[in-house]
Amino acid sequence: MGALDEEHFDVELENGMKLGCLELGLEGEPETVAIEDAVKVLLEGLGEDVNREGLKKTPLRVAKALREGTRGYKQKVKDIVQGALFPEVGLDNEVGQAGGAGGLVVVRDLDHFSYCESCLLPFQVKCHVGYVPSGQRVVGLSKLSRVADIFAKRLQEPQRLADEVCLALHYGIKPAGVAVVLQCLHIHFPNLETAFLDPNHQGWVKILVSAGSGVFENENSDVWVDFLGLLKFRGINVEKIQTRDPIKSWCPSCSSSGAKISSELAPANPGMVSAVASILRSLGEDPSRKELVETPSHFVKWLMNFQNTNLEMKLNGFVFGKTDPHKTNGEASCNKKHIHSELNLSFWSQCEHHLLPFHGVVHIGYFRPEGLNPIGKSLLQSIVHFYGFKLQVQERLTRQIAETVSSILGDVMVVVEASHTCMISRGIEKFGSSTATIAVLGQFSNDPAARAIFLQSIPNITTSGV
Amino acid sequence: MGALDEEHFDVELENGMKLGCLELGLEGEPETVAIEDAVKVLLEGLGEDVNREGLKKTPLRVAKALREGTRGYKQKVKDIVQGALFPEVGLDNEVGQAGGAGGLVVVRDLDHFSYCESCLLPFQVKCHVGYVPSGQRVVGLSKLSRVADIFAKRLQEPQRLADEVCLALHYGIKPAGVAVVLQCLHIHFPNLETAFLDPNHQGWVKILVSAGSGVFENENSDVWVDFLGLLKFRGINVEKIQTRDPIKSWCPSCSSSGAKISSELAPANPGMVSAVASILRSLGEDPSRKELVETPSHFVKWLMNFQNTNLEMKLNGFVFGKTDPHKTNGEASCNKKHIHSELNLSFWSQCEHHLLPFHGVVHIGYFRPEGLNPIGKSLLQSIVHFYGFKLQVQERLTRQIAETVSSILGDVMVVVEASHTCMISRGIEKFGSSTATIAVLGQFSNDPAARAIFLQSIPNITTSGV
Repeated sequence: MGALDEEHFDVELENGMKLGCLELGLEGEPETVAIEDAVKVLLEGLGEDVNREGLKKTPLRVAKALREGTRGYKQKVKDIVQGALFPEVGLDNEVGQAGGAGGLVVVRDLDHFSYCESCLLPFQVKCHVGYVPSGQRVVGLSKLSRVADIFAKRLQEPQRLADEVCLALHYGIKPAGVAVVLQCLHIHFPNLETAFLDPNHQGWVKILVSAGSGVFENENSDVWVDFLGLLKFRGINVEKIQTRDPIKSWCPSCSSSGAKISSELAPANPGMVSAVASILRSLGEDPSRKELVETPSHFVKWLMNFQNTNLEMKLNGFVFGKTDPHKTNGEASCNKKHIHSELNLSFWSQCEHHLLPFHGVVHIGYFRPEGLNPIGKSLLQSIVHFYGFKLQVQERLTRQIAETVSSILGDVMVVVEASHTCMISRGIEKFGSSTATIAVLGQFSNDPAARAIFLQSIPNITTSGV
Repeated sequence: MGALDEEHFDVELENGMKLGCLELGLEGEPETVAIEDAVKVLLEGLGEDVNREGLKKTPLRVAKALREGTRGYKQKVKDIVQGALFPEVGLDNEVGQAGGAGGLVVVRDLDHFSYCESCLLPFQVKCHVGYVPSGQRVVGLSKLSRVADIFAKRLQEPQRLADEVCLALHYGIKPAGVAVVLQCLHIHFPNLETAFLDPNHQGWVKILVSAGSGVFENENSDVWVDFLGLLKFRGINVEKIQTRDPIKSWCPSCSSSGAKISSELAPANPGMVSAVASILRSLGEDPSRKELVETPSHFVKWLMNFQNTNLEMKLNGFVFGKTDPHKTNGEASCNKKHIHSELNLSFWSQCEHHLLPFHGVVHIGYFRPEGLNPIGKSLLQSIVHFYGFKLQVQERLTRQIAETVSSILGDVMVVVEASHTCMISRGIEKFGSSTATIAVLGQFSNDPAARAIFLQSIPNITTSGV
């Protein structure tokens, strides 16, 4: 096992202090307690037992995550930029532009997250910032990220976020100009019906926005061309920058069906809607601000997708059909039976520890007796959605799908691949991470060769970037 | 400019609090002050004026970064894992493995950084963790990352880091087994001589290590095959896992030339070496621990690459040679002159704000009169190294290279692309970010078409991943 034995390790455990940076002392504050109370109302509205083990600490976790994730309301740009402006000589303007007088500075690929003001779900932001120094001074590079973070850690909308970061840097650094490009990624907003109907439903909504000040005010200026040229080196495609449309929101909660549903749902769940409004107040926001008026009902609409139901799945009476000899896709032989792989069944779920979405794909492998057709993909997709649209943990989701599929098909193997919003939108902020879980039943559990055959049938996944 | 005007913004600035998470209150503590004093000794040893503007706060910045970056010494695994173990039923072992009883759980691509115990420079760690739950319980996914962080935030060596994370999770979660794979990336250790001699000097040293406990103790077990299969989906090539060699260090400071130099340097800089030893003590380490004995001299050796020198560059008497009509590589026409691009000149430098390396490539474009040969690449590379091997900021480096090249070649454009260690190894931890700076002289400053031609000649850069 390496250099440490258990005894050494126990000694090490005693030599400790609290988590420092991760504990902001939010616990027990009135705003935190108010959010906890509101989250309990939401959990009860979902038909959940707020005292069950997995949910006991959920209200506190949600409250801390929301308060940490909106701490930007209480931060000052001046505190960050002051003391990080450094004298740096440049060139006489007739000679050229460089250093502290005109030399473009660009920092790319700064990962942030923000909360969508339309639906209260976190969204990912890849931030690219450029500025042209003037006055013979430059700013410490990390400050570009820290200032962006102040505005990301609020309830936001991509274009306003870009504008605010741009303006804050402009007044903070007083350069010749600032340019901001944001690539934003918002989880899609399925509801049970559309998800079941549309198997090709996309997981993410993407948007690219920009803002410019000073020499960047004119989007057709040469300095924009230089800036975009430097983004292209990093593979950042800037051809699709959105022009600002203040009326149409990018958030999927604001689609026509969403707007309809909000008015349908609101009367049905007034307690939940008021609970979300009280959360907004506890975060220091004004729920009557026009961009926030619909937010509580949008969030409740999203949440109700994951309502606790006692719906029984009717899986009895399923029979294998006869096989079509020409159809051998997704199959591999093993011990005279075929391993059939049903890949990339999409799912949405809601992490019960943080009330945050996790989302990804399910791969199912099973042994198919020769001469019989594989089971229909749509039935498997329905099973996946049935267990996905709940308050869940990925480990349980994996087991439940495996057990249910096994009740029809016998020996099965299930792999669930997911991105967890809770891994990016809380303290750890691990943007590239992804989680995989496995369940194996019957022959798969003691036949490594069968497992390997199934795993090899799963295509490589490229990181879900912006 | 968008939704905010300056007045609105100023009001917003007043409504603030301190940075919260980013301010750990380390300022003024005896350990911090002791490190500040030691850093002043190092700066003086480099021939620097510790009171010049760019360096005034460097001792405090270095002290805070080092103490934050080694806070793992004071953290407890129990504090993190306790309260994050959740009951989760599994399956009877005869039926299969799933959920809280045997279903493999894998979290991939967790970005961390650590400090190399051989040279005190930060290195990047991409961490992949798997565990097989037992006892009908699972751990919150983020805890795998938080526990890894406790051991990463120390002076480390990749294999020990993997072993410690593995063991800590094993005793913390009490699962059937834990597997850890780390991909580590250490900046290469040039010294002035080898850098000048070897233009193809690689920027990074890479290593892949693993550790396993319980069912993962045997590296040839089937469960390792499952785990590695799930890493492959993410493009993680695990074929090069190192077997442990406790004698040979991965750190470039421990190469044979490094060992030689350390004994040469130590007598010359006893004050600097003792200063680094005192930093180790202030971090809670024992400088006489055998892995740390050479660390102060290694760090001083690295640092001395960036000594302040008054070396004059002799560039007079340079003349263009006649052109070879068959050689037109790296050229593009513009206004009857050719724009010649000299691309990917590597550089190392040391950020004067944080005493941390930044490293990357320089691209130089200039107008070459028709019929004349381009200037030799080795001269340009020498100019780049001359300005790189100093305490620097990227903006100044860019300007200095541009001014010097311009004194020989007239109108020039310089692009510097860099990764800054200070962007990952302090609070902001922005792992994927990269910085570009531009300087333009003469015709390039008022000819956007010439700039565009030069920028287009620069090849796209793939992110420097592990």
